[in-house]
Amino acid sequence: MSNRYAYLGPEGTFTEAALRALKPDTPAAEFVPCNGVDMVFAAVRRGEAAGGVVPLENSVEGGVSATTAELVRGDPLLITAEITVPVEFTLFARAGTTLSDVKRVATHSHALAQCRGWLAANLPDAESYVVSSTAAAAQAVADPASMYDAAICARIAGERYGLVPLAEGVGDRADAATRFIYLSRPGTLPEPTGADRTSLVAFLPHDHPGALAELLTQFAVRDVNLTRLESRPTGDGLGTYCFFMDADGHVAEARVGEALMGLRRICRDVRFLGSYPRADAGAGAGRPTPRVSTTDDDFHEAERWLARIRAGRVD
Amino acid sequence: MSNRYAYLGPEGTFTEAALRALKPDTPAAEFVPCNGVDMVFAAVRRGEAAGGVVPLENSVEGGVSATTAELVRGDPLLITAEITVPVEFTLFARAGTTLSDVKRVATHSHALAQCRGWLAANLPDAESYVVSSTAAAAQAVADPASMYDAAICARIAGERYGLVPLAEGVGDRADAATRFIYLSRPGTLPEPTGADRTSLVAFLPHDHPGALAELLTQFAVRDVNLTRLESRPTGDGLGTYCFFMDADGHVAEARVGEALMGLRRICRDVRFLGSYPRADAGAGAGRPTPRVSTTDDDFHEAERWLARIRAGRVD
Amino acid sequence: MSNRYAYLGPEGTFTEAALRALKPDTPAAEFVPCNGVDMVFAAVRRGEAAGGVVPLENSVEGGVSATTAELVRGDPLLITAEITVPVEFTLFARAGTTLSDVKRVATHSHALAQCRGWLAANLPDAESYVVSSTAAAAQAVADPASMYDAAICARIAGERYGLVPLAEGVGDRADAATRFIYLSRPGTLPEPTGADRTSLVAFLPHDHPGALAELLTQFAVRDVNLTRLESRPTGDGLGTYCFFMDADGHVAEARVGEALMGLRRICRDVRFLGSYPRADAGAGAGRPTPRVSTTDDDFHEAERWLARIRAGRVD
Amino acid sequence: MSNRYAYLGPEGTFTEAALRALKPDTPAAEFVPCNGVDMVFAAVRRGEAAGGVVPLENSVEGGVSATTAELVRGDPLLITAEITVPVEFTLFARAGTTLSDVKRVATHSHALAQCRGWLAANLPDAESYVVSSTAAAAQAVADPASMYDAAICARIAGERYGLVPLAEGVGDRADAATRFIYLSRPGTLPEPTGADRTSLVAFLPHDHPGALAELLTQFAVRDVNLTRLESRPTGDGLGTYCFFMDADGHVAEARVGEALMGLRRICRDVRFLGSYPRADAGAGAGRPTPRVSTTDDDFHEAERWLARIRAGRVD
Repeated sequence: MSNRYAYLGPEGTFTEAALRALKPDTPAAEFVPCNGVDMVFAAVRRGEAAGGVVPLENSVEGGVSATTAELVRGDPLLITAEITVPVEFTLFARAGTTLSDVKRVATHSHALAQCRGWLAANLPDAESYVVSSTAAAAQAVADPASMYDAAICARIAGERYGLVPLAEGVGDRADAATRFIYLSRPGTLPEPTGADRTSLVAFLPHDHPGALAELLTQFAVRDVNLTRLESRPTGDGLGTYCFFMDADGHVAEARVGEALMGLRRICRDVRFLGSYPRADAGAGAGRPTPRVSTTDDDFHEAERWLARIRAGRVD
Repeated sequence: MSNRYAYLGPEGTFTEAALRALKPDTPAAEFVPCNGVDMVFAAVRRGEAAGGVVPLENSVEGGVSATTAELVRGDPLLITAEITVPVEFTLFARAGTTLSDVKRVATHSHALAQCRGWLAANLPDAESYVVSSTAAAAQAVADPASMYDAAICARIAGERYGLVPLAEGVGDRADAATRFIYLSRPGTLPEPTGADRTSLVAFLPHDHPGALAELLTQFAVRDVNLTRLESRPTGDGLGTYCFFMDADGHVAEARVGEALMGLRRICRDVRFLGSYPRADAGAGAGRPTPRVSTTDDDFHEAERWLARIRAGRVD
Repeated sequence: MSNRYAYLGPEGTFTEAALRALKPDTPAAEFVPCNGVDMVFAAVRRGEAAGGVVPLENSVEGGVSATTAELVRGDPLLITAEITVPVEFTLFARAGTTLSDVKRVATHSHALAQCRGWLAANLPDAESYVVSSTAAAAQAVADPASMYDAAICARIAGERYGLVPLAEGVGDRADAATRFIYLSRPGTLPEPTGADRTSLVAFLPHDHPGALAELLTQFAVRDVNLTRLESRPTGDGLGTYCFFMDADGHVAEARVGEALMGLRRICRDVRFLGSYPRADAGAGAGRPTPRVSTTDDDFHEAERWLARIRAGRVD
Repeated sequence: MSNRYAYLGPEGTFTEAALRALKPDTPAAEFVPCNGVDMVFAAVRRGEAAGGVVPLENSVEGGVSATTAELVRGDPLLITAEITVPVEFTLFARAGTTLSDVKRVATHSHALAQCRGWLAANLPDAESYVVSSTAAAAQAVADPASMYDAAICARIAGERYGLVPLAEGVGDRADAATRFIYLSRPGTLPEPTGADRTSLVAFLPHDHPGALAELLTQFAVRDVNLTRLESRPTGDGLGTYCFFMDADGHVAEARVGEALMGLRRICRDVRFLGSYPRADAGAGAGRPTPRVSTTDDDFHEAERWLARIRAGRVD
């Protein structure tokens, strides 16, 4: 099993592309598509896979609810890597089909939402059909008896099912992207690289004005930048939320560690989800220069100073 | 058109149930199902419907991405009412089918996620199929030639398509609920009731540590409670977020008005989505007692004091 | 009385020098020395003087307790001007005295504290005597029968009592300065100049962790810079403090006005002490550029926006 | 020298009373009056005294400037104890003097300010003279050739100089009190008692809006209560302040230690002045119950949790 990897299937999804990009050099690797995000988590939890990949958020659609739900509940897994994949939609059909032949287009509901403009401009008379995934759309179209003439899907899916591209870049936003995470069973964290991200879920103690601001202050006071914050129901009814957060930095760093301890003290519960290299590390984008006073050296200097004054040494 | 109301269809969804609960006494009303959240928004924007209902968030699944996307982008609409509907799943089949006959169950992916426990315990050998909505599942099952034996859907859908219930309460969480919002074209706001909610979207000026905490401080300093906060991509790529917020109170109240002006000054943009009565107003749940110093009377007293001191009257 | 001005006497103090600098062009003015800071306040309160000058703080010694006490208690007066005067100490003696003759030096306790270094270096064998003011020291030395050989005092005092300078600049810190305030009865405030200061006293509602931080947040959230903050006992026993504050800006400005209203709402009491031109206005020192979002224009734009959204106009 | 103790003289001041109360059981102790607060500091710094006592603040007059100045500058000493002494003023005269004989009253300027009401009501025709201390007033009156008929001073002073009380409780505020501190050379801190105070001086990095609020947030975020905050000039000219602070708790406590480290990181400099038992420990006054999440146990639990998650143990 040590070379089996689970991912949100079916074959040919952007998730498979993400997994292949994360594990490029594993010739003996076996990539296992799962029928649902929860199935990927289950495979990793049970040890049937060494790791798994699921989508976390999309630049157009926002968070992937099923993934967040699994991260918040059930036996904890660690996020140990992330990758961002451009979402490039292609219109695929069986060989011999031309654009003017296309009357019925199958795709996933999210993909449909992101391609409405192109469809209205280029296939104004075609009808759209929603199926369970973009890859499923490709698979369906591959069947010569299919009711669908074309599928909007990822390149990997169209090629896998032997289709030919009719039009590329049919998404309305050229810069759409999806962020995927790689899940591992609890164990060693990735080493700090200097450009890391830490994910966690915080459960507020109770609902009072300013409670969330107090929580964010635990980060701000240590100069830790939050890059994402999403409230989501705890599952105990509407109005009871937990907060899914991404912060810059690695839990091994003093400033992140102290901020998390602060959160731990004031929250009802904190679930640590992992510290891992940022996908955009190379780009430099969103990597604020830490203020000089919150490096590990600053923390250690302050600790030595505290030890001195606690010993009455102020001279 | 003044008595036409749009909702996320097809017929028989929980959304239709929400709309009927919001408009109980409109005998001549016409309820129009739309094929997508964006279509509901479009119908209201174009004036083809007097109002529309869409789901905003679910206690188990979290926010409904398509709804948030439409609220954030496009021509603005106002939220003028909300309602919370319990999500009660029922297993429906054609007359004559018994539970032991059920080998193939159709439903929507969210419903499937919420009923996995029941299915594993009661129909361990049945296969599950994902279709585009729970109502579509019911419709499909109603066809005697259907490949599906049963549908998990709302009561309203099963009844509409002439099915019979095989099992009720098949959801794993008895307290699951969905919050729906009622959309109107810009115009008069609902009157303050004393138990209102204000929704808005804030676009941060730029990404720096503590920016979000500063934003929340604008609320905390006026003792305005935030009940929901969700970051979502602005659509301009990952890492650029706006914040969808629900706050207690009505924009007509001084403390809410001043907080919103503060937000307006520090944000790149603020989109006001509406002030409307809280669905849980009767329950009292989550209605914190405002501290004595932030009532409208307190604000007006402070304004009078400021006018006095500006005139040099300190005695 | 309209040309009578009170000041902390006796004649020849730095306070008289401050008053003369503040009222340079009033030929018919009568300057009345008072025997105590409280006497200056009393003279202005009773209308016996059109205004009065007292020291507020010294760069070496800190706040002048008697002045703060009067500002906090009793019938309110307004600060309508301020001036900063360099504290330059001179050693004066009767004509014919040489430095080597000086065995006994009289001065005020604060002056003595600021000249100890010079005395130790230049008059190591002389004894120091504390009297009630530096001017009183000069006056005493002027008496040929005096037990004192020399006085450390301001130039104005030495000259007034016919003494001759033995040594100038005998203070240990060349940059020592005292800030004086000009007091008026309540009435019209000085016009905003663009470089003003606002003084006030805030009485916290009760002593809880973070109460003071909440108070400062009222300023920070409107980007109002605090330049001075001093807790002082309310007089109701130790441990009960009020806070004397100087803020940048004029109460006529929107950001200052809103901050003061916020203070008013959360405090037990707020005493406004005045808005007046900064003494260091020309220097530019300490005049932070307001962030673009807190100008009066920004506030007015936000008010117009609020009026629009309250009317349901979001388009 | 180990039983020599310095105090702000002359003999008979409230400071001597404070020292005797702090060292009640030291029969061989030698109490040495010093001519100025700076002289007390010097005696302790040079090892000529084992410790020293000076006034820190008075409930009516506020902070004692000379003491704060010495704490901020020069070789550091530690505050290792504090005591609060009620300020009870008595009118003393030579034997044989009656109240109606009193035409000239000598006292210190602070005492005079606190007794003006009584003097106006009971000795409306008497003249007041300011001398260097209340004890000096008593000493002067003891001389039969004195120009003064009576002195306002502490009981200890009147008795020491053989005077008789003419009137007790001549202060205008019955609850006036002065807080004195006991100074030691750097060395072992007093043990935590559960009701301690920590004093320090913070030098802000630079003057920007919100800088002080950030500093206070370092305390608030760890739920450490500040009981006193006083800005004072650093001596480098007006407008450059440092902040003298008293906080609840002992530096040996985790929450205080972490707050001080936070201060250390964001400030230009922090001078620790000591942790010592609160004088009002028995009274319970002003001793807020720490929120449950900031006890040492809470900190240690959070540290253990951090160690676990850093090791990848989230299960």
